[in-house]
Amino acid sequence: MDLFAAMRGRRSCRDYLPDPVGDDVVEKVLEAATWAPSPLNMQPWEFFVVTDAAVRERIFDEAQRCRLWALERSGWKWLDSYSVDFLKQAPVIVAVVGDPGKTGVDMFMEEGSMGYQAACAAAVQNMHLAAYSLGLGSLWFTLFDKKALREILGIDGAKVPLALVCLGKRASDIREVPRKAVKDRTTYLR
Amino acid sequence: MDLFAAMRGRRSCRDYLPDPVGDDVVEKVLEAATWAPSPLNMQPWEFFVVTDAAVRERIFDEAQRCRLWALERSGWKWLDSYSVDFLKQAPVIVAVVGDPGKTGVDMFMEEGSMGYQAACAAAVQNMHLAAYSLGLGSLWFTLFDKKALREILGIDGAKVPLALVCLGKRASDIREVPRKAVKDRTTYLR
Repeated sequence: MDLFAAMRGRRSCRDYLPDPVGDDVVEKVLEAATWAPSPLNMQPWEFFVVTDAAVRERIFDEAQRCRLWALERSGWKWLDSYSVDFLKQAPVIVAVVGDPGKTGVDMFMEEGSMGYQAACAAAVQNMHLAAYSLGLGSLWFTLFDKKALREILGIDGAKVPLALVCLGKRASDIREVPRKAVKDRTTYLR
Repeated sequence: MDLFAAMRGRRSCRDYLPDPVGDDVVEKVLEAATWAPSPLNMQPWEFFVVTDAAVRERIFDEAQRCRLWALERSGWKWLDSYSVDFLKQAPVIVAVVGDPGKTGVDMFMEEGSMGYQAACAAAVQNMHLAAYSLGLGSLWFTLFDKKALREILGIDGAKVPLALVCLGKRASDIREVPRKAVKDRTTYLR
């Protein structure tokens, strides 16, 4: 698929068919992730590929808990009816886990290690683009408590689960989501 | 260009020709940025496009200052000879600036607003891919103090400069940079 068609066509998917995704397809998506740039090429990512239904159910439960907590804390009423059923529906969930020890010079800076997070986010974007080009829907999900997710997936305490990426065939069509015009977001210093 | 060719072929560029980059090309790169996903589609990014030589010189000075500070702080000897001349060479530097107010439910969570940073990182990755497919080299640079960069570029104090993306024609060939095998970074929960 053409690069610009992939960047433009990709949309978050919250509605999946139960059809399994082949290991070869998942691997292509993960390989795309590893082509992302990272500080000092430290490749600060690891992947936990979850297809086990019981584990996905525990992830769903954790997201539900966080949703209700966020609803109470934020008062954002839409959270009341926001369904996270896609966590049970999507046949594959990939947890992208970052290593704060594999970061750049930023580890010495005021805000602390951020480079590894940016690299993992770039890797996630590659995953979305790859998934779309391979005929899959995908979703970038972050509504979880890091400690809880570490326990559910058996993640080393020194590593940081940064994102859950749902993967699967779309159950519904892609809806166009508008973007603000570039010129309204750009300042030129010439 | 094919998506996978772009993801695989893109490499950080630290050596630029002085040839100017057309506004239309810069705009294509920025438009690609805006196609990235973001929490609640809030599009938490802004772009400062710097071609002015005096401003690029100030950015260079700030990076030099940070490099020497980091050298002293880290003791990483390679920083002593690490040249940031690319900040003067690259004909275009785009500052990607995030808005912490445009983030998702994470604003209520323990670590604070991270969603807007992840979205901006995804946008930066789209920029790299777009630049590569348009025949440009690019670099993701973060060695600067946020306050100093705000002052140099005139960025609102409530916004956060997250990355400098250098853009320009490569002065040298692309060097292959290896990646660890995916299987060594993946755990399956089936």
